[in-house]
Amino acid sequence: MRIVVVYGSHKAQGWRDALGAQLREAQIDIWQPGFTEPADFAVGWSPPPRFFIDQPKLRAFFSTGAGVEHVLNNPNLPAELPIIRVEDAGMGEQMVDYCRFEVLRWMQRRDEYAAQQAAGVWKPLDESHREQWPVGIFGLGVLGREVAKAFAADGYPVNAFTRSNTTRDPNVRLFSAVNGADQFAAFMQATRVLMIFAPLTPATQDKFDRHTLRLLPRGAYVINVARGGLIVDEGLLELLDDGHLNGAALDVFRQEPLPAQHRYWTHPKVRMTPHTAAVTPMGPAAKQMAEKLRRYAANQPVTGLVERARGY
Amino acid sequence: MRIVVVYGSHKAQGWRDALGAQLREAQIDIWQPGFTEPADFAVGWSPPPRFFIDQPKLRAFFSTGAGVEHVLNNPNLPAELPIIRVEDAGMGEQMVDYCRFEVLRWMQRRDEYAAQQAAGVWKPLDESHREQWPVGIFGLGVLGREVAKAFAADGYPVNAFTRSNTTRDPNVRLFSAVNGADQFAAFMQATRVLMIFAPLTPATQDKFDRHTLRLLPRGAYVINVARGGLIVDEGLLELLDDGHLNGAALDVFRQEPLPAQHRYWTHPKVRMTPHTAAVTPMGPAAKQMAEKLRRYAANQPVTGLVERARGY
Repeated sequence: MRIVVVYGSHKAQGWRDALGAQLREAQIDIWQPGFTEPADFAVGWSPPPRFFIDQPKLRAFFSTGAGVEHVLNNPNLPAELPIIRVEDAGMGEQMVDYCRFEVLRWMQRRDEYAAQQAAGVWKPLDESHREQWPVGIFGLGVLGREVAKAFAADGYPVNAFTRSNTTRDPNVRLFSAVNGADQFAAFMQATRVLMIFAPLTPATQDKFDRHTLRLLPRGAYVINVARGGLIVDEGLLELLDDGHLNGAALDVFRQEPLPAQHRYWTHPKVRMTPHTAAVTPMGPAAKQMAEKLRRYAANQPVTGLVERARGY
Repeated sequence: MRIVVVYGSHKAQGWRDALGAQLREAQIDIWQPGFTEPADFAVGWSPPPRFFIDQPKLRAFFSTGAGVEHVLNNPNLPAELPIIRVEDAGMGEQMVDYCRFEVLRWMQRRDEYAAQQAAGVWKPLDESHREQWPVGIFGLGVLGREVAKAFAADGYPVNAFTRSNTTRDPNVRLFSAVNGADQFAAFMQATRVLMIFAPLTPATQDKFDRHTLRLLPRGAYVINVARGGLIVDEGLLELLDDGHLNGAALDVFRQEPLPAQHRYWTHPKVRMTPHTAAVTPMGPAAKQMAEKLRRYAANQPVTGLVERARGY
């Protein structure tokens, strides 16, 4: 088995070593422009346009990220090349922790207490509890489901919006776009903290604009750990400014790094992180990838196969 | 049944109403200096010295707070008066949430990311995971046990130090002071985030000073949600200053409100809250109190009876 690792960052070497430790039978090279020795499989993230020209013999592309628009948007991606993506591998736990931190920050009024400490003010504020914080999970993939499960187990009311409507969890109130009725508005209205997990696809691009975000109840919050393109920035900023929304925690942006002049950097209601909410952990992910590669090479079924028409 | 509610704050009225809704058969008054109509039971928090002189016929005192030094320290407390304290009633969940927030803040390096946002810097930092954050719970009462259980369920390594050594949870590594060997030093050395839950008693007063806190590994953190008197402030500040400790989250203090000139207010490694980590929720607590009162009045056994010799 010949594998080529392609990465837009310094991580290529780490992935090659991690995969090599799992797949001693494979020859694993790192792609650089002009590397044309034909590989059977590619593993990586955000391949440059030239990559697929240099590597015309690939049998499949394995994405080390859960979102795959970085591959689907490649202008030279062969039409029939199968794409397989990593699933969870520890990212679900990180997503739970990211969302927990933000909900607790808001619920426990931690920013207000920090401001009081800075001002030398001792003043208990009214408290609220988990049952008063219904969360709404947009996109019930592997990660969204894990977050839904964790919040439901903690006693939060959990709403979820899904287009596939397959999950049956008695602790999650399911809203759906299938079977005729689009329950998106009802989903938003029932939600105090919107958590965006859906992939970026033509169906989700610009989904959250000034109109849809205003469906959230007054004083609601937004967490985006999916992709920046799902939110129309001007709409979110307008609602934060006019007081309809109380806060936003954003890990992903339309352009990354976020441009220096963007208002998110300095908005008092926006807490940013640089696309670090869930970092694919190399060890467990490489183990999962190696298993998928072995099964795929042996013509056995693998999970995580991307359906291009739906975009994930 | 005649009940007198005694409170050092504006909360007396709320407690009377909440208890009244549960105990329609009882006559419930609010104590003020000079109110001497003899009551059977007192319910409240931090009774003034005069209270027990005005109320010599009490059969028991019911504390609405989990800690009871506010009663035990009263100079006029009758020697044999039984004291019964509220247990959990929703405070366990709040303690879990308080500790979760702090651990996630440190684990996810949220203060560093906030500083980067303020400086306009986009820079992913190395991440760490739950299994790298062993927590150490000092005091395995009702609240400490609930926090231990929650962190163990999340996959954190959980150490606990207890003097009674009664809990048997396969997911908690138990250290004890009984049976000869004092495993306190080993408990501290195994702990990255110390969480203090023990009551303030002669045995725990000043327990955490410069010497014992230095048993924690370098870079450790401290959370105190019990009572300020367990920590020697100068010792904690010394270790925060010299770099042995990375941070402290303090909800309780030797003097409350914390005096304006205290260094905690402005220390960059200290995050303060004004004794709000777990607020006794009046509804569930009143319900629990009413049940205890009914049982006690009927000479049935109740839980939460304080042993004065041990102080809780």
